Amino acid sequence: MARRGLLIILSSPSGAGKSTLARKLVDWDPDIRFSVSATTRPPRPGEADGREYHFRSHAAFADLVATGQMLEHAEVFGNLYGSPRAPVEAAMLDGRDTLFDIDWQGGQQIKLAMREDVVSVFILPPSIAELDRRLRQRGQDSDTVIAGRMARSQSEISHWAEYDYVLVNRDLETTFADLLTIVQAERMRRARQPQLADFVRGLNAEFSSR
Amino acid sequence: MARRGLLIILSSPSGAGKSTLARKLVDWDPDIRFSVSATTRPPRPGEADGREYHFRSHAAFADLVATGQMLEHAEVFGNLYGSPRAPVEAAMLDGRDTLFDIDWQGGQQIKLAMREDVVSVFILPPSIAELDRRLRQRGQDSDTVIAGRMARSQSEISHWAEYDYVLVNRDLETTFADLLTIVQAERMRRARQPQLADFVRGLNAEFSSR
Repeated sequence: MARRGLLIILSSPSGAGKSTLARKLVDWDPDIRFSVSATTRPPRPGEADGREYHFRSHAAFADLVATGQMLEHAEVFGNLYGSPRAPVEAAMLDGRDTLFDIDWQGGQQIKLAMREDVVSVFILPPSIAELDRRLRQRGQDSDTVIAGRMARSQSEISHWAEYDYVLVNRDLETTFADLLTIVQAERMRRARQPQLADFVRGLNAEFSSR
Repeated sequence: MARRGLLIILSSPSGAGKSTLARKLVDWDPDIRFSVSATTRPPRPGEADGREYHFRSHAAFADLVATGQMLEHAEVFGNLYGSPRAPVEAAMLDGRDTLFDIDWQGGQQIKLAMREDVVSVFILPPSIAELDRRLRQRGQDSDTVIAGRMARSQSEISHWAEYDYVLVNRDLETTFADLLTIVQAERMRRARQPQLADFVRGLNAEFSSR
């Protein structure tokens, strides 16, 4: 029996480095499956259905929720976002971890539903000045958009204490090394190693045959 | 406010490598305090009071228990063993981890009393044949003593599923690396980082002053 796959939840305010860390984690272990969310918001230029998001109509999304096919869902700025359940459960049974790049609302729902299978990590910026700088550095967004993001960042940060682990991203390499340590340790938890029961049965058989 | 010190419980049958792993862990971080147990059994040649054990009379031990000065205690082969409470609590508040090399009875009591502050690791031998070989290799003990130890090993192994982590010690360096990963990750748990609350207060002050 294989190890039971983990659900790794990574949350942070926009600009704290979450997406870079998520990408590095999947590069480190390509067996980690990145959960692609479904959303009712329209695709932006360059986004492909099934890659950035599964783009769904409001009616189709509501149907997925009503038939229990979403692990979590939440409304953000009038659009629905959610994580499809089936691929997550398939990966778990297959011993593969799933990585969720989601906000506190989704994280909270998954934690409540899947409890012991979840490890949640919140990434904090070293300072708000640095968060602001990183958001502006992208150079894509207007001041109004950035102000909106900062307001949302404050709300997101207010949920830091609901996470199992909290890392302050002062330096990307250090933070990534810490994230790896967490993932490696969590994989070793006894509750995630059902094959150990077989191993101990083997030891007991050895005792009996002495 | 410093990190809250961990209580690291290491249990295993005799000969599975627990003592070597404990020594390596303290060598790796000398700030980890090794919990010296109290016992009513008489000292063996070469053992010093306060180093291997705190040697106490039956009456003195009973008094420590009655006055709440023992974190846990249990009787093994007619002798009492237990972990003094005061140095553990002092280390915790000081942000220093305490390492316990104890059996499942002591581990269970500490886990029940100290819950979130505890991380417990059980070390399994790769096989019973190998456990037997390691016990005989020491060359100090009679067959009768070894048979007694093996019976006790089977009983100790039966409690493997009560631990947070279980490692099979096939190779000492690999097992030690895994143990280090566990200790490093557990130190990063949010609940053990009270200074994060101050850090987030600072971020909120930054938001307010914008």
